[in-house]
Amino acid sequence: MSKYTNIPFVKYSATGNDFILIDNRSLGLTSEDADFFKRICQRRTSAGADGVLLIEESSKHDFRLRYFNADGSETECGNGARSAAHFVFSHGLPGSKMSFVFGEAVYEAEVDGSWVKLKMPTPRDLQETLGIVKENGFDEGGFIYIGVPHFVLFGKKIADLDLQKWGPEYRQHAAFQPAGANINFVEVLGDNKLRVRTYERGVENETLSCGTGCVASAYLAHLKKRTRYPTEIMTRGGNLKVSKDPQDQHFYLEGEVKAVYEAKFYQ
Amino acid sequence: MSKYTNIPFVKYSATGNDFILIDNRSLGLTSEDADFFKRICQRRTSAGADGVLLIEESSKHDFRLRYFNADGSETECGNGARSAAHFVFSHGLPGSKMSFVFGEAVYEAEVDGSWVKLKMPTPRDLQETLGIVKENGFDEGGFIYIGVPHFVLFGKKIADLDLQKWGPEYRQHAAFQPAGANINFVEVLGDNKLRVRTYERGVENETLSCGTGCVASAYLAHLKKRTRYPTEIMTRGGNLKVSKDPQDQHFYLEGEVKAVYEAKFYQ
Repeated sequence: MSKYTNIPFVKYSATGNDFILIDNRSLGLTSEDADFFKRICQRRTSAGADGVLLIEESSKHDFRLRYFNADGSETECGNGARSAAHFVFSHGLPGSKMSFVFGEAVYEAEVDGSWVKLKMPTPRDLQETLGIVKENGFDEGGFIYIGVPHFVLFGKKIADLDLQKWGPEYRQHAAFQPAGANINFVEVLGDNKLRVRTYERGVENETLSCGTGCVASAYLAHLKKRTRYPTEIMTRGGNLKVSKDPQDQHFYLEGEVKAVYEAKFYQ
Repeated sequence: MSKYTNIPFVKYSATGNDFILIDNRSLGLTSEDADFFKRICQRRTSAGADGVLLIEESSKHDFRLRYFNADGSETECGNGARSAAHFVFSHGLPGSKMSFVFGEAVYEAEVDGSWVKLKMPTPRDLQETLGIVKENGFDEGGFIYIGVPHFVLFGKKIADLDLQKWGPEYRQHAAFQPAGANINFVEVLGDNKLRVRTYERGVENETLSCGTGCVASAYLAHLKKRTRYPTEIMTRGGNLKVSKDPQDQHFYLEGEVKAVYEAKFYQ
């Protein structure tokens, strides 16, 4: 019997970005349990996921959310926030609208069946970084921070791109150290349609979709390629939508999430 | 609510070869549910596993076992049989020794904590197939059937071999059609020690370990390379042991298994 025996969790998939969701209100898991988060995220030898989401108490909002990547590092995560909203609504939050503290920001979410719409923190720290973009023949791009640092590159035939090669190339680029960045490769498919593939810091691999990466990509596509909102985003795991409210100027990320199973950890 | 909502299962890992284990005695799942088996085996978008094991009633033995690969095809599986033995013992079989019907054969197993020893079906259909082995510079090998068709190749520096290239090359070789074969790449590390990596038919990818593949590899290493039993096998997922009983001449596969979590499927 370890400290983690019988911990209950729910596995979520949000367009293929997958999470272990834990109600941490009475468990008291902290960053000191990073080894457990790493272990349960291992595919094949354990449950397997991109990261672990913890639901905690908040005095001012409906709950507080924490997210630990598969490598144990703590960050924010758009698809994770959508999954957490669905979990909390499914487990008894009275209304379908909620607000929660996540990292440095307050997020708002609205759940409608399996569809979750998430109000994103305001993008900041835009950097042109065009020199870095052009180093390898990409034609446009830039850096933006939306809860997570993101570098966005525009190119052609993104579907065939070797992300095992190009992801680490930029992930480890001196310009983004020491924090690093998620690296998004974007192809403009139409005036409100993008294809996005993301190499994620902390997972250190391509994930099937990255929510904050899709918002970063839509933001830079609008700036650099004059695409329109709402922007439809095709990811390897499914489709997401990014919109911008013309009044409050906030960005919204929306799409389906799926609760896969509920479980108790054995070891 | 689908037919599969609330199906209980346990996830197992046997040296990294991972399984969804379902007590099928009252559920009545059959090969007609192959789409469900494929779906739940998908990593990221669902639970994720190499295959699904079904425990069923047997009139003559302790139980009957069926195994469906991640692609929905039915076969036998050594690491799966070891996990099933552990599951059945953990869920109330009185003794730690058991026999069960699996495919064409009767298997016997003995459970000691997390250690499971499995008596294998008798190897048959040995074929030298040396021409195929030498096509790409491998120095020895052959074909053997142990519940599953296996092709074994001996080479050097197997740890660095590109299985995404070499696995499909032999998996799709005309000599093994239409049934195909699991392809095992073997390096002799000592007179009773091997390194084995397996590209699995039905998973259509490398798995972290393959139980029947380890027995096939030990069998052919003894024949071709004069290695001794018991043979220690290093796989990417952990160590397994293959022995041969000097009296009954049966082969035994043994090693640890790990129950990761118990769960109810949601969708």
